[in-house]
Amino acid sequence: MAKIVQCVPNFSEGRRQEVIDQILGAITSVEGVKLVDYSSDASHNRSVVTFLGEPQPAKQAAFKAIEKAKELINMDEHKGEHPRMGATDVVPFIPIREITMEECVELARELGQEVWEKLQIPVYLYEKAACAPERQNLSNLRKGQYEGLKTAVAEPERMPDFGEAKLHPTAGITAIGARPPLIAYNINLGTNNVEIAKRIANVIRGSKGGFPAVKALGIKIEERDMAQVTINMCNFKEVSLFRVFEIVKNEAERYGVNVIGSEIVGLTPMEALIDVADHYLRLENFKMDQILETKL
Amino acid sequence: MAKIVQCVPNFSEGRRQEVIDQILGAITSVEGVKLVDYSSDASHNRSVVTFLGEPQPAKQAAFKAIEKAKELINMDEHKGEHPRMGATDVVPFIPIREITMEECVELARELGQEVWEKLQIPVYLYEKAACAPERQNLSNLRKGQYEGLKTAVAEPERMPDFGEAKLHPTAGITAIGARPPLIAYNINLGTNNVEIAKRIANVIRGSKGGFPAVKALGIKIEERDMAQVTINMCNFKEVSLFRVFEIVKNEAERYGVNVIGSEIVGLTPMEALIDVADHYLRLENFKMDQILETKL
Repeated sequence: MAKIVQCVPNFSEGRRQEVIDQILGAITSVEGVKLVDYSSDASHNRSVVTFLGEPQPAKQAAFKAIEKAKELINMDEHKGEHPRMGATDVVPFIPIREITMEECVELARELGQEVWEKLQIPVYLYEKAACAPERQNLSNLRKGQYEGLKTAVAEPERMPDFGEAKLHPTAGITAIGARPPLIAYNINLGTNNVEIAKRIANVIRGSKGGFPAVKALGIKIEERDMAQVTINMCNFKEVSLFRVFEIVKNEAERYGVNVIGSEIVGLTPMEALIDVADHYLRLENFKMDQILETKL
Repeated sequence: MAKIVQCVPNFSEGRRQEVIDQILGAITSVEGVKLVDYSSDASHNRSVVTFLGEPQPAKQAAFKAIEKAKELINMDEHKGEHPRMGATDVVPFIPIREITMEECVELARELGQEVWEKLQIPVYLYEKAACAPERQNLSNLRKGQYEGLKTAVAEPERMPDFGEAKLHPTAGITAIGARPPLIAYNINLGTNNVEIAKRIANVIRGSKGGFPAVKALGIKIEERDMAQVTINMCNFKEVSLFRVFEIVKNEAERYGVNVIGSEIVGLTPMEALIDVADHYLRLENFKMDQILETKL
């Protein structure tokens, strides 16, 4: 089976469809790369693109998209609600099939060097590709955003990993990295009391002493008059969906509240759900290659 | 996505490796067909082959294998413990992806006609491809086996669906059909009392008033000193793995016995396990195309 990597670049353009189309076109122009999804948000003024491919075509497609975004986006003219620092803001590589995180880290570093050398856009390496622990977290790197980084990037501790200590005059600076697949997962509660959802979110979220690989918030879904624990599962191999589901169910019981359902928003790797089945069926020695579709 | 059908032909040869190799070679000679698995049993003197492909290549590969088996296997010289009636004994087509059962039935009937017209081997159609309800069950068709069928095939109610009322002189008769995927599933109990496994098997098996799509037996696994409910899940879309698991767990509790694990033997379609995750996570509106790997 071929190695497959996922790439989810974020671009600082969510309004001009013709610009978005040209960036998508740069990606799909590379043979062997499969565009899976994209979404644009006008108030964030940002687009998130998802594509799959073998490692070298995926890297080439990411490069071409960064090149096109540099050509068409001027950060001095960009406004939007979402924090951002470059025309191409972030480019994560994600291992999907037959490929290790280390290979994705290598891919990110190769791309970072190429982006600086050929496009003169400076690059930060982040998450698993980061060269120092304090550079893993994207929000640390992005502090001050595009405008603030114009001067902050000259500080020794904020030097780019590739490039000189200044931003590209229109394309800013890009973060390139490697990370596990992210699953957007919501658990719906049989109550409209958002305080209960908030308390449960605090039990599981890493920033409150819960799982480091889990981000969670308690929110109210107005149209269903329902409280929800909305979750980013940042590493399903470290913390499985079933474990988060069971903890939320258990915590909710303490308030006499039931879990009425859960939702996976967007895409998930197959393995994250096979892992759930494996747990509840108490499977012995199940291997992913027993799944018929993996033979295709 | 391309339509994918699975084909699991059974051949009456489990001893002479050179014969098995030539049959496998006939299958893999067809472009676009993927040999997934095969197993041979010397005491049964029988081989079971699994391959995948788009409908027309899969049909062609099945035809070539039947042709090769006719050339190399003489049923008058065949002995084995497993009941059988032809050099190629049974050929089921199984819908896997983007293909309906009706299309698999059509494929089975096309192949049946071709096998009679080009190879002069008579054909029964069985399971979903059967032309009458009493012909759905393979064991009805195979009654009397090869030797008995030499005369029985002349009875009006046992006429082949394709061909004349007599067997091929060396290749016998072949059953060709369409059916859902079959999952071999075992549930292991925390007891060595095989009677408990037998009672539980009787609750779920179709022949005792349980689920028509479930076959089950209670057996003893000697090397683990453990009772097991061994199951054939004949239609996981009708009866899901989680439902059988939960019923067995519940029935075992009545004897103070725990389910200590379960096993999927061999291959399973992805959907059978996604369905389990969907149930236990109480997923809302989950669709198979949210699985990243389906995009490849």
